[in-house]
Amino acid sequence: MATHNFEPAHFHVTIASHEPVLHVASGDTIRTWCVDAGGHDRTGEQITDGGNPQTGPFFVEGAVPGDTLAVRFDRIWPNRDRGLSGQVVAPHVVDPPFASELPDRTGEADWWSLDLARGTAQLEDPPPGLESLGELPLAPMLGCFGVAPPRGQAISTATSSTHGGNMDYRGFRTGVTVFLPVFVEGALLHVGDGHALQGDGEIVGTGIEVSMDVEVSVEVIKHKTISWPRAEDEDFVMAIGNARPLDQAVQHATTEPMRLLAEDYALDYRASSALLGQCIRYEIGNVFDPAYTAVAKIEKRLLVLGAG
Amino acid sequence: MATHNFEPAHFHVTIASHEPVLHVASGDTIRTWCVDAGGHDRTGEQITDGGNPQTGPFFVEGAVPGDTLAVRFDRIWPNRDRGLSGQVVAPHVVDPPFASELPDRTGEADWWSLDLARGTAQLEDPPPGLESLGELPLAPMLGCFGVAPPRGQAISTATSSTHGGNMDYRGFRTGVTVFLPVFVEGALLHVGDGHALQGDGEIVGTGIEVSMDVEVSVEVIKHKTISWPRAEDEDFVMAIGNARPLDQAVQHATTEPMRLLAEDYALDYRASSALLGQCIRYEIGNVFDPAYTAVAKIEKRLLVLGAG
Amino acid sequence: MATHNFEPAHFHVTIASHEPVLHVASGDTIRTWCVDAGGHDRTGEQITDGGNPQTGPFFVEGAVPGDTLAVRFDRIWPNRDRGLSGQVVAPHVVDPPFASELPDRTGEADWWSLDLARGTAQLEDPPPGLESLGELPLAPMLGCFGVAPPRGQAISTATSSTHGGNMDYRGFRTGVTVFLPVFVEGALLHVGDGHALQGDGEIVGTGIEVSMDVEVSVEVIKHKTISWPRAEDEDFVMAIGNARPLDQAVQHATTEPMRLLAEDYALDYRASSALLGQCIRYEIGNVFDPAYTAVAKIEKRLLVLGAG
Amino acid sequence: MATHNFEPAHFHVTIASHEPVLHVASGDTIRTWCVDAGGHDRTGEQITDGGNPQTGPFFVEGAVPGDTLAVRFDRIWPNRDRGLSGQVVAPHVVDPPFASELPDRTGEADWWSLDLARGTAQLEDPPPGLESLGELPLAPMLGCFGVAPPRGQAISTATSSTHGGNMDYRGFRTGVTVFLPVFVEGALLHVGDGHALQGDGEIVGTGIEVSMDVEVSVEVIKHKTISWPRAEDEDFVMAIGNARPLDQAVQHATTEPMRLLAEDYALDYRASSALLGQCIRYEIGNVFDPAYTAVAKIEKRLLVLGAG
Repeated sequence: MATHNFEPAHFHVTIASHEPVLHVASGDTIRTWCVDAGGHDRTGEQITDGGNPQTGPFFVEGAVPGDTLAVRFDRIWPNRDRGLSGQVVAPHVVDPPFASELPDRTGEADWWSLDLARGTAQLEDPPPGLESLGELPLAPMLGCFGVAPPRGQAISTATSSTHGGNMDYRGFRTGVTVFLPVFVEGALLHVGDGHALQGDGEIVGTGIEVSMDVEVSVEVIKHKTISWPRAEDEDFVMAIGNARPLDQAVQHATTEPMRLLAEDYALDYRASSALLGQCIRYEIGNVFDPAYTAVAKIEKRLLVLGAG
Repeated sequence: MATHNFEPAHFHVTIASHEPVLHVASGDTIRTWCVDAGGHDRTGEQITDGGNPQTGPFFVEGAVPGDTLAVRFDRIWPNRDRGLSGQVVAPHVVDPPFASELPDRTGEADWWSLDLARGTAQLEDPPPGLESLGELPLAPMLGCFGVAPPRGQAISTATSSTHGGNMDYRGFRTGVTVFLPVFVEGALLHVGDGHALQGDGEIVGTGIEVSMDVEVSVEVIKHKTISWPRAEDEDFVMAIGNARPLDQAVQHATTEPMRLLAEDYALDYRASSALLGQCIRYEIGNVFDPAYTAVAKIEKRLLVLGAG
Repeated sequence: MATHNFEPAHFHVTIASHEPVLHVASGDTIRTWCVDAGGHDRTGEQITDGGNPQTGPFFVEGAVPGDTLAVRFDRIWPNRDRGLSGQVVAPHVVDPPFASELPDRTGEADWWSLDLARGTAQLEDPPPGLESLGELPLAPMLGCFGVAPPRGQAISTATSSTHGGNMDYRGFRTGVTVFLPVFVEGALLHVGDGHALQGDGEIVGTGIEVSMDVEVSVEVIKHKTISWPRAEDEDFVMAIGNARPLDQAVQHATTEPMRLLAEDYALDYRASSALLGQCIRYEIGNVFDPAYTAVAKIEKRLLVLGAG
Repeated sequence: MATHNFEPAHFHVTIASHEPVLHVASGDTIRTWCVDAGGHDRTGEQITDGGNPQTGPFFVEGAVPGDTLAVRFDRIWPNRDRGLSGQVVAPHVVDPPFASELPDRTGEADWWSLDLARGTAQLEDPPPGLESLGELPLAPMLGCFGVAPPRGQAISTATSSTHGGNMDYRGFRTGVTVFLPVFVEGALLHVGDGHALQGDGEIVGTGIEVSMDVEVSVEVIKHKTISWPRAEDEDFVMAIGNARPLDQAVQHATTEPMRLLAEDYALDYRASSALLGQCIRYEIGNVFDPAYTAVAKIEKRLLVLGAG
């Protein structure tokens, strides 16, 4: 149960079987940090190319294909007091004829002042009409993280799949444990792309992008095989589906909880249908990236009862 | 501001310019009831063909094309103590290869006992593993309602579009006001398809289907033209998009709030992008019906500030 | 086997159980004409509202729900010497960021001179770069036709479904026989929306729109139930799927030939998979309308062999 | 203009910046061969893992990012006399409720005898009803080929994108020239996944899979930047779009010819809209793989005229 302090020196814009930067044991904690999506560190200096550069990968001893890696986000918190966001919703998230009414997307970014003590963000130069918007509460999250995919793939940090990746789901915040399928020896965990705040869908193509301090604890769950990322917080168990179109992401996110309920709660598909049919909740991670992200949630309270 | 008690005698399985059953004034309240999706009334007797039969249509005096009809759901509450739900998730909401692992969908329904005093639902004959699920809180809603569409269309109550229809969104509950575009004189409001409870997505093809007492107040908003249904509850303003694939429903649901923020809060698309980008919430109505339903929400609290 | 000459006096912009304009027997031929999509007749005069106005409906004696109506297009040919087309591809058929580079779509139309003797079309005022395009061979087709849908629906002529409708498929031309499911007594055939020429996808939202002379022969196939429109020409049998997204249209268009091969050629799904897997051809009707149209084709030559 | 004979010794299941196996000059010809999708060579022996193993990559001297690589398929022809195909259409290409009527997909494959002299394929053990299907003409093609993608990605040979990949389009046959965007120095061409015959859509998940002799000539087109693969045969210029859903593949495949017509034929978007609107043809590569493939085609005859 060691705690490792790791200072990253280089970064990756693919999630892949890159050379591990650190070996840790199951149960260990890693304290490290990530540059922002554009490659800027806590000082605001760009120290690497942009595109969701990842810190890592971390090799977790004992993890082999067919296992699951549990990653608990112990702390995700900005390490600088300014972040930036895209200024215009993306053309593919609005009605096609409406898209041409939008202002040009290729311009400047919005800068936000982050008050890390108070835990708030405020537009530095609000566009007309938002002058009195004031402070919004921070909800720091990691937009992109995952484990090395199978068969030698090096998957761009622009997108996501079964290995995790650029899911841009605001539910991936401090206190959440994410479960990832292990495809290669050591799992090879990558982390990056901090958002101080993000709406559902990441419809402007960004959250409030900021470099982050990250503390994660990892644990290998042996002989546990999952098809898609899963997660758990205080109140919910979740399954994540990543695909385009969103319909397919929802299909993945609906199938995986049925497997989960069968494996962990001995519910056959009749029982899980009855439960999910009236109680499932969906959330949308992103509808911006090459693969969209849908999340299915079920209250743990119902499962304790269900486990009867 | 009259209150009309209306006893339906026949029902429609299309939303269309049917002969109005009642003329009401803007500001009036209608107290009526709906059969369940299968055409069964409060006694459980099937009194009309199934398929989300609608009560109405109600002609609202003064509503003409180009206006908006506000429909406040004053009360949506089951009027009998049993409801039923589909037993198996639909094949199109799970991964295609997984669908063939599902049990046959063509069988029986699950029956639920409704305790209307306590406001709970309980499976009468829970499948193995759900014996101790116990009571779930009711969250009564209307699955299908809307106004007559334009150009003489008679749109099946199986589906939805700009006129409303079979949206199967659990947010359409007591206390919510829905705004519908008026396409024909009198608007011609239809209501039906009560669900005592429903998970997101309506993935088993039903909520807990039950006949409902319905009380709605209608108001004509003159010279206000909207493209898609909108809604408002205590905390949120919402826009609803209905289409397949879900991606397109999300496009509609994202475009309409930008129009709303421009019209009602004088926010240009730069400002609404900045606000929605970090603060929008999406919910999924259904991913079962021919058209899927996506809902975009924004906290009213933010808009009061924004209106500065 | 009578031939009826029918002069339309009014037109419909929904396909529905409208009052029949003519009763014909199975085997009869109807000679009539259609206005163009904008409601203009052979003189160019607008005699009815635009939106793919339909001639009919024609009541075919003996057709009842569960039968199939065969409609042979004996002749589809323009009855005037000018047609018009949309000038710009629709924003939803190109990449979303590219759409804003397109010129405004709300402007003028392109006019084409039709030489009906030579069977050619030529741009009257070609945009720069197309001055020497010259004559294109006519390929007249009906964009929108169908039978009354079930359950009292009145479906807009903007869209399509199992009943046919606005499929905008260039394969619906002289010499083709289309098979439509009968949903109501008399089938109630509607025809309209002539195109002198159209590319795949109808990507500018139109073909060369023109009023048409139409001669069709109808035949009731008793006790033959189909799920989607089918068709047959000299060389191919076809199945048509109408839906959004295009993926779903393809699913319909792939499923229906497997049913067809089972019913008409006694091929089980193993055999039809083996045949279609290596021999199926897809064509795209439209990717412009609310429902897209995919067509699956199989050479009749292979089926004769297959029928052994 | 050298001709290189290359004997592959190892194979890749990603398309990536792997170590080049051969350096060739622009204008050179490469004569080599590919194992089949399952890794079997001309003797039928499995010499590498399955999954569309690729021969190469070939480094083309002078190719740098921003250039285009022209790859002419001089000869694609099976080098053994047996191939195999999937037995059942995939569940995701049929209607979801129909999928459960299909036989199990996990069974055997169909074997086909290939008569390379006569150029035909015949089922060795035809399922009932196909006994008299007899010989089908071969139409050999490469299912998967491409160039190294940008930013260090290693993209699975299961899927496709702007770099090419597993497009499974039957138009990629002898005589066709494919144009690929160059993302890395040397372009790094990979080739594999031969199909002796394949229907549109690759709906059983395979063509007739067979090892192939492949002869290609490569040429670097300097300072020519394209967004998506393009191709040209005797009669058509083509653009290829790879994405899910198919709608998005069609968007890519529609946008790219508009760019092509602007660059190569000086047609602005008004002119290309007028031409493509009435003359474009779409074909479907695959609707089986993670990314689907749509192809837009325009007759060269029209472009010669158009070039005026």
